[in-house]
Amino acid sequence: MNNSYGQLFSITTFGESHGPAIGVILDGCPAGLEIDEAFIQSELDRRKPGQSKITTQRKEDDSCKILSGVFEGKSTGTPIAMVIENQDQRSKDYSHIAETFRPSHADYTYDAKYGNRDYRGGGRSSARETAARVAAGAIAKLFLNKSGITIHAFVSQVGDIKAPHYTQLDLNKTEDNIVRCPDATTAEKMIAFIDQIRLDRDTVGGLVTCVIKNTPVGLGEPVFDKLHAELGKAMLSINAVKGFEYGSGFEGVTLRGSQHNDEFYTEDGKVKTKTNHSGGIQGGISNGEDIYFNVAFKPVATIMQDQQTVNKHGEEATVSGKGRHDPCVVPRAVPIVEAMAAIVLADFILRNRAIKL
Amino acid sequence: MNNSYGQLFSITTFGESHGPAIGVILDGCPAGLEIDEAFIQSELDRRKPGQSKITTQRKEDDSCKILSGVFEGKSTGTPIAMVIENQDQRSKDYSHIAETFRPSHADYTYDAKYGNRDYRGGGRSSARETAARVAAGAIAKLFLNKSGITIHAFVSQVGDIKAPHYTQLDLNKTEDNIVRCPDATTAEKMIAFIDQIRLDRDTVGGLVTCVIKNTPVGLGEPVFDKLHAELGKAMLSINAVKGFEYGSGFEGVTLRGSQHNDEFYTEDGKVKTKTNHSGGIQGGISNGEDIYFNVAFKPVATIMQDQQTVNKHGEEATVSGKGRHDPCVVPRAVPIVEAMAAIVLADFILRNRAIKL
Amino acid sequence: MNNSYGQLFSITTFGESHGPAIGVILDGCPAGLEIDEAFIQSELDRRKPGQSKITTQRKEDDSCKILSGVFEGKSTGTPIAMVIENQDQRSKDYSHIAETFRPSHADYTYDAKYGNRDYRGGGRSSARETAARVAAGAIAKLFLNKSGITIHAFVSQVGDIKAPHYTQLDLNKTEDNIVRCPDATTAEKMIAFIDQIRLDRDTVGGLVTCVIKNTPVGLGEPVFDKLHAELGKAMLSINAVKGFEYGSGFEGVTLRGSQHNDEFYTEDGKVKTKTNHSGGIQGGISNGEDIYFNVAFKPVATIMQDQQTVNKHGEEATVSGKGRHDPCVVPRAVPIVEAMAAIVLADFILRNRAIKL
Amino acid sequence: MNNSYGQLFSITTFGESHGPAIGVILDGCPAGLEIDEAFIQSELDRRKPGQSKITTQRKEDDSCKILSGVFEGKSTGTPIAMVIENQDQRSKDYSHIAETFRPSHADYTYDAKYGNRDYRGGGRSSARETAARVAAGAIAKLFLNKSGITIHAFVSQVGDIKAPHYTQLDLNKTEDNIVRCPDATTAEKMIAFIDQIRLDRDTVGGLVTCVIKNTPVGLGEPVFDKLHAELGKAMLSINAVKGFEYGSGFEGVTLRGSQHNDEFYTEDGKVKTKTNHSGGIQGGISNGEDIYFNVAFKPVATIMQDQQTVNKHGEEATVSGKGRHDPCVVPRAVPIVEAMAAIVLADFILRNRAIKL
Repeated sequence: MNNSYGQLFSITTFGESHGPAIGVILDGCPAGLEIDEAFIQSELDRRKPGQSKITTQRKEDDSCKILSGVFEGKSTGTPIAMVIENQDQRSKDYSHIAETFRPSHADYTYDAKYGNRDYRGGGRSSARETAARVAAGAIAKLFLNKSGITIHAFVSQVGDIKAPHYTQLDLNKTEDNIVRCPDATTAEKMIAFIDQIRLDRDTVGGLVTCVIKNTPVGLGEPVFDKLHAELGKAMLSINAVKGFEYGSGFEGVTLRGSQHNDEFYTEDGKVKTKTNHSGGIQGGISNGEDIYFNVAFKPVATIMQDQQTVNKHGEEATVSGKGRHDPCVVPRAVPIVEAMAAIVLADFILRNRAIKL
Repeated sequence: MNNSYGQLFSITTFGESHGPAIGVILDGCPAGLEIDEAFIQSELDRRKPGQSKITTQRKEDDSCKILSGVFEGKSTGTPIAMVIENQDQRSKDYSHIAETFRPSHADYTYDAKYGNRDYRGGGRSSARETAARVAAGAIAKLFLNKSGITIHAFVSQVGDIKAPHYTQLDLNKTEDNIVRCPDATTAEKMIAFIDQIRLDRDTVGGLVTCVIKNTPVGLGEPVFDKLHAELGKAMLSINAVKGFEYGSGFEGVTLRGSQHNDEFYTEDGKVKTKTNHSGGIQGGISNGEDIYFNVAFKPVATIMQDQQTVNKHGEEATVSGKGRHDPCVVPRAVPIVEAMAAIVLADFILRNRAIKL
Repeated sequence: MNNSYGQLFSITTFGESHGPAIGVILDGCPAGLEIDEAFIQSELDRRKPGQSKITTQRKEDDSCKILSGVFEGKSTGTPIAMVIENQDQRSKDYSHIAETFRPSHADYTYDAKYGNRDYRGGGRSSARETAARVAAGAIAKLFLNKSGITIHAFVSQVGDIKAPHYTQLDLNKTEDNIVRCPDATTAEKMIAFIDQIRLDRDTVGGLVTCVIKNTPVGLGEPVFDKLHAELGKAMLSINAVKGFEYGSGFEGVTLRGSQHNDEFYTEDGKVKTKTNHSGGIQGGISNGEDIYFNVAFKPVATIMQDQQTVNKHGEEATVSGKGRHDPCVVPRAVPIVEAMAAIVLADFILRNRAIKL
Repeated sequence: MNNSYGQLFSITTFGESHGPAIGVILDGCPAGLEIDEAFIQSELDRRKPGQSKITTQRKEDDSCKILSGVFEGKSTGTPIAMVIENQDQRSKDYSHIAETFRPSHADYTYDAKYGNRDYRGGGRSSARETAARVAAGAIAKLFLNKSGITIHAFVSQVGDIKAPHYTQLDLNKTEDNIVRCPDATTAEKMIAFIDQIRLDRDTVGGLVTCVIKNTPVGLGEPVFDKLHAELGKAMLSINAVKGFEYGSGFEGVTLRGSQHNDEFYTEDGKVKTKTNHSGGIQGGISNGEDIYFNVAFKPVATIMQDQQTVNKHGEEATVSGKGRHDPCVVPRAVPIVEAMAAIVLADFILRNRAIKL
């Protein structure tokens, strides 16, 4: 199934940017979980457009309605369907992209793959689809709360502006500013830079770092469904993502084993590692240390500048972004990264229940 | 299923490093494919230990036997089971790791997850499991050959020694040297460096770059199973991998949209892009340009030096590598990367057959 | 995923009888299919309550809304979400079943499995869920039409009243009467009998026979996913079904091989069988002959009579049906059987595309 | 995956009748289970050919070798691969079936589906494949033993000769005679009848009844993967099966709700039903009562008589069985039915672990 993710805690999303609605079915949420609808909405609000001056000024309330699977405030074990109506589905003028392929968008590849496509606002390829993931991810977070697991993502780089390493940051400060970087000084620079990029009618890429704490030892299936392999796939499935690394990541390439290995010791009867180049995952399985990883986002493809391209008839054409778009995607990507991480972990927690006698 | 990969062209591997055998069932190989057993063996030979002075000196012939699914030299559409017997399953002295957790190995996490484990040679967590993938990947390559698709992986970095960009290399020269870097000068440096690392009783990480040419337009499912998301998961599922990036990758973070976007043009009636920061994939779907990606490998965890650790009783212990191990994993990782890439592509080719009326 | 069916043409249903809505996501419908909404509605109308004097008199319009996956009247290859709002979700008096287990209903088992449940109108266990299947099945039928495949189900038995063998009937007459038996004489008897059962405040079982014509040779996967095994599972997943048989079925038990074997001959260059005890399926794969099978339905569990039972506190209790219920389920089951058969076939048609080089 | 069964306790089988070997990978067996190899072999011996005068006289020892997943006598949580070498793979004369389609065999449909096939001994379509299922089923039984669940199948009908209802039988006597009917008098008649059928160079069908006791309440997923729907699929996937019914089954068609409903009562604090027309399953979920079902087998297609048919060139041909074949398949089907039932239950036990908070 092409629009589903997860083995036991599994989601199936649907919807196009400018169709009647987008939504998700979450199948496999354990029965008995209190479903805090206000929390789901607050997560959606972190992702929604128009939330600050450095995001797109489009307006969508992204109001989420639960259609099934919850009774008297608790999950029943049956599928939880959630729908977000598209408020702005007026028939705008999309003639400029109906037949013309925007550079580095999915227009051409969708067209070639399916033969037809809903081009309005990017249709299914719009990042609007990720709202459905955030709704399901909110429920995953509610489930993870029961185990004490916390997930903190934040913007660690925009262009060349980098935040300090996560261990030097107070991750609770992420929501203190509109760029979602917990370091105030770096955040200011990032905001100013994105603002300039916007004025340049351009866009820029960025990095989101995610830290997961209090994970029990033993999550992840050791061969194909390694914990970091699923996290990687989940992150790479988010629009505009170009790379994923965990623990030492690409820097590990240059290290020696004698530098990289994480020696074990015990503390209060628990097995710990002195360093954490492993990023909390060894052999694809969580070892109880912090899990941390980086997700690289390319610059948004829609720019307010003329670009050369071709149309579906093979003719040369010029195209430019219209309306209002994000100059940098990472501030709004933070809750999406968290949502996907939460879904991955929730799934592995359930899978882990079947592993021993 | 925890030990399976692929939806339609799917593999299930089994086996421990020092059990009777390892192997794979390939289910979904289309009927009528000529199964060239010599080619399968030649791929296994590229991965096998003892092939050069810079790999482990252990000896395993990795001789592959087909048990089913092939009749009169052709696939029949039924499962192809392949078995590689473990030649060296003598009861060596594994007492040093039976109860002691080697740093940055999977000993501790397996133990915590399952409660028991086959510790001999790392058991299921040994990279020996990847021989099964290479055997299945060889058949995937035979299938891809029918579409003209080619897959070339090579070592692009060892420690700080980097090869030029792939577009400046003749990828057919990869097998000309034992480190599998197509640039002779860089290869020499890499070999000398790995040799020194070996003498230091240490290990080092490295980078494998993979280039896929002649991919048809339209491969990849656009939401969760994006082409690069599956490639990412497949690569991250290989032992010792810490990161994955495609196209512009992590460098894309610093670029502007006006720099990063790949403008379209037409050539001989085909839609092409002037640049290829997209790495041949847009919206998760192949666009016909070269697909290229980097896979980061950490240094091998087994080093010939004393390291502090704990045993399963929580007591402090010292452990050191015994026998012969790879000082750097990337030369032998090249065929593994290719095999997993081939399996991903074969799967998407089959999935793509169901997409239109 | 517990609420999904199908590998490539796959559906996921959601919703409870008295929640806001029920619905389905159809993932994998090939792009380019004309989606005839009026046809979908007409199929739902065949299943909806209140359609005749021998069905429940409850009123639900079962009006279906497509939320995604269709653009300018055609499928786009993206998920098709369909929602049917529950019109009658007023807070009726369900106190009689909130804590009391109705005999031969799913009240007790749901409660034991999940710990809580939406008891209103049976919640998720209500046959109302099958409306979602019918909506998806309608699209499957539109897809099958492209291959000329036709599916005809009809009521072949109610209580002891049996229709003649399908080969002696004009299956186009099924919709000519309210019991959906194409033999007018038998139909009259069935209707009179069900009417009497209704007056007796009782219910009765029945048999639905389904005939599939013009199936291409080669559908079905030969080991676990045999064509008849999937048809069997699909039928047994319908509420109240107790048995499934195809071709000679249970009668085959008493036959000899010399009587049962279907000898081959050729006609106009096509391989045919002289008899069809095989029911159009040999070795789990369609052979081009008519596929036919029987589905046994038990009497509806809700009767208008007092029955002894217990409540969730383990106390003895008495329960009786309230409101209006079907005295016999089979007339409304006919479109459900057809829908599930259509989904099974659509899935196998897509799966079959991957089977050869 | 076409050759796999089960979601969490899942098997993938491979192999052709006359290839080098058949076998199975069992993925998802929980770690820590004692693997009694002698028991696995004893189950295979119940299925193997040549075990009595009323089965085929072919000789295959069906000796099973475990290749992985077991260490020091216990499962490790990694895949358990088991291989059974085909002893008799000599190049017999198969020219009579290489190009000629045997009536009611899978020769024609395989050929049409795949374009080529391993015709020797029926290849993949041979019931020999079920030996792999029996091996995996034996491990499922070992797992179920931990929960006290028992599975008893027996031959309840051969031709017109029927055994009494299971509640009147001592199921422990099933193995007391070669036809595997626990009623000695009926068994004698069945044996004499099968012997006569054999002398007639013919075959006959039969019925296997299976009874599962001590199932916990709550197994089965309530919509598509109902407990009886999976049992039905599992049984229908066995070679030569034509029908499946559970509880009241096809007889339920003629009953009234007032007769059929199973009223609840409590005994020692447990909820019980006074009758068991439900066959231990309500709403697709086990209710703790005995689960019982019938599996209808058609007569074996291979008869020692000339039959008219066609060959792959469309020419008329005559074919007759050669060598030694089973005159009636049900005595050897008993362990296969048990094995598949055990695999279904083991899977649902694991799935059920994820259902609540």
